[in-house]
Amino acid sequence: MSKNIIVGQSGGPTAAINATLAGIIRRALQSTNIDKIYGMINGMYGFLNGNIKILNGIFEDEYNLALLKNTPSTALGSCRLKLPDVNSDNKDDIETYKKIFDLLFEKNIKYFFYIGGNDSMDTVKKLSRYAEKNGIEDIKIIGVPKTIDNDLICTDHTPGYGSAAKYIATTMQEICHDNEIYPIKSVVIVEIMGRDSGWLTAAAALPRLYGGKTPNLLYLPEVEFSKDKFIADIERELENKSNIVIAVSEGIKYADGRYICEDDENHETDIFGHKQLSGTATRLEYTLRKTIKCKVRAIELNTPQRCASHIASLCDLNESEKIGVEAVKAAESGKSGVMMIFKRISSESEPYKIAVEYEKIENIANKIKTVPLEYINKAKNNITDECLKYIAPLIIGEPDMIYQNGVPKFFSLGLI
Amino acid sequence: MSKNIIVGQSGGPTAAINATLAGIIRRALQSTNIDKIYGMINGMYGFLNGNIKILNGIFEDEYNLALLKNTPSTALGSCRLKLPDVNSDNKDDIETYKKIFDLLFEKNIKYFFYIGGNDSMDTVKKLSRYAEKNGIEDIKIIGVPKTIDNDLICTDHTPGYGSAAKYIATTMQEICHDNEIYPIKSVVIVEIMGRDSGWLTAAAALPRLYGGKTPNLLYLPEVEFSKDKFIADIERELENKSNIVIAVSEGIKYADGRYICEDDENHETDIFGHKQLSGTATRLEYTLRKTIKCKVRAIELNTPQRCASHIASLCDLNESEKIGVEAVKAAESGKSGVMMIFKRISSESEPYKIAVEYEKIENIANKIKTVPLEYINKAKNNITDECLKYIAPLIIGEPDMIYQNGVPKFFSLGLI
Repeated sequence: MSKNIIVGQSGGPTAAINATLAGIIRRALQSTNIDKIYGMINGMYGFLNGNIKILNGIFEDEYNLALLKNTPSTALGSCRLKLPDVNSDNKDDIETYKKIFDLLFEKNIKYFFYIGGNDSMDTVKKLSRYAEKNGIEDIKIIGVPKTIDNDLICTDHTPGYGSAAKYIATTMQEICHDNEIYPIKSVVIVEIMGRDSGWLTAAAALPRLYGGKTPNLLYLPEVEFSKDKFIADIERELENKSNIVIAVSEGIKYADGRYICEDDENHETDIFGHKQLSGTATRLEYTLRKTIKCKVRAIELNTPQRCASHIASLCDLNESEKIGVEAVKAAESGKSGVMMIFKRISSESEPYKIAVEYEKIENIANKIKTVPLEYINKAKNNITDECLKYIAPLIIGEPDMIYQNGVPKFFSLGLI
Repeated sequence: MSKNIIVGQSGGPTAAINATLAGIIRRALQSTNIDKIYGMINGMYGFLNGNIKILNGIFEDEYNLALLKNTPSTALGSCRLKLPDVNSDNKDDIETYKKIFDLLFEKNIKYFFYIGGNDSMDTVKKLSRYAEKNGIEDIKIIGVPKTIDNDLICTDHTPGYGSAAKYIATTMQEICHDNEIYPIKSVVIVEIMGRDSGWLTAAAALPRLYGGKTPNLLYLPEVEFSKDKFIADIERELENKSNIVIAVSEGIKYADGRYICEDDENHETDIFGHKQLSGTATRLEYTLRKTIKCKVRAIELNTPQRCASHIASLCDLNESEKIGVEAVKAAESGKSGVMMIFKRISSESEPYKIAVEYEKIENIANKIKTVPLEYINKAKNNITDECLKYIAPLIIGEPDMIYQNGVPKFFSLGLI
């Protein structure tokens, strides 16, 4: 009897998470052992409500599969759902797991794929533990990483990061061109995503490797932020150059652990009340207006960082598709309770080459990979060329987008 | 004796103002009547300080000219300089005009090209008047339009608008995909440039013509803004759809003429003190947090709207280059005191076709073209398909960018 499989997407969107979905579907359609491909609509939230759809028909059309690969965000929808403790003896908690596995049994689902970031890997870990605890051996549970933040451990990098990095490097270079035109002093502060890690902010400096324009200063969450040092750094830069551009992570914090965007010196915190880390650049803009008397502009790159498919990295999309293909192969070969990972084979020398492997989910979930301190310069306001060389291959290549009347054509299931 | 020419760029940058510069240089290099091509560094500000450079050598290299066409911002730098009244009898004012024309005579400059928006056309108007008043007939003064705002009169559209419109349409479609993934109610408010006219905000709805995703509501500066109506509009939309996206012009105003970003209801005005119209979406986000209880996010598209060359419109770049070529031809044929314009030849039927003509600068400078009310829907919260059909051809085509290690390669004179 042939097997059915199910795939879900979870957490924040990226430009590459649909490429991974495309890879899983592509391999599953090719495999003679696999029959139905179910998609969870809105991840585990939808699954628990029985909201699943058969995907085979629509993706037997190669055109749809190609469009899906280049479409931003999650075609199946997403959720932010934390499963209960596997060892909980709460009746509802026990019922939740029972419901999940009953549905898997009922639909004859043998391979379960969950594409997501840190929180989603927690889901994979819990489902794997439950299966193990209850002797369920014929359902293979596989996590497939995605996050623009590049903060998962055990993998060289995460699918989705390369596309976000390419968007940031490209946009920052354009902003640097834009800012240098007037013969007056000016400062632009650009806020980049990254709560705990500065990988995305580091990408802003990529054009430096090839003589392009890049921010003069970069501030990462890995370094304690000091306003006095920030102002002194800028004053020093302005001695040599009229127009400067600064990249800051949204997650930069003072020595006491407060985020800059929680700053209450200007009595702004309660006015905004953002739960998301937003407004860091605006706060720093206000600080500079009071101290350095010159033109200041704050720019928050915001969600386009994670959904700008029109400037996605071909390397990232291809790798993201490949890790999906390999996830199905891993399940077919009997693996379970693992997350797929990238291993850089030629880490030190050209050409860049990766292999797709897997790692026990227990070793990965709920841990964070930050930018190592040796990748940050001594003055702690920039990153090293070594860091850029690590990121550089991940943004190479431009996907062959299908444009329709001047805008990219994307795939939509019309279900979410 | 052959003639020298000078060209300057002025006002805010666009993704296409260097394409016009490339067109002027290309035609001047081809013309046997033209000898030296001078560039003003930082427009009239630099010119008045004698900061001009000969451009012939560097652009005889076709590669540099091709790079220049695709490079954002102003390769020659820019300025915001208002010339004095031509009829002023103030000694300094008279001296300013004398200095300008003395320098033109000294360098044997016979054609003067100034690429810019409304303020720059004021400069062209004043120089033309001065020349006329003083019987200077052998210096031809030509204005070449550029502005992302599309708000100059007498021309079908402005060079630079198409690229900004393509960036906005593409990014908004991506944001709409990004916002629809969670099974909870959410509102995203996207702030788009446009102080007095809503042409850029209108472009956000372009994908609607071809079945793409677009904002549910659009608010333009041409319509008086009412917070109560805004909230009622959103509540109505949320009845049918969980996730909605709204596009607002930065220049929307209340009935009493106050900009939304000057709003003092939340005691925020003095905290920001922006002179630029920034923070409109953030203010509306705060309003919605208090009234409609759901997830709200403000996104300000900011300067990438005017410098995102990586998603420039090929139609815009080609037209912008062409209007530069035609400007030189117009000067060669003896025209002066004019601004180059686009005339749409096939306005009603396919295929889209334009001609480059010219119009007396007196009829253009210091006037503003807004979105006509018949292009706005009856509920005054969206635009009509007729409006979209006018914009649609301007965003067609993707330029053949040169990518170097994953980021676009741009031209830099290294002078500014």
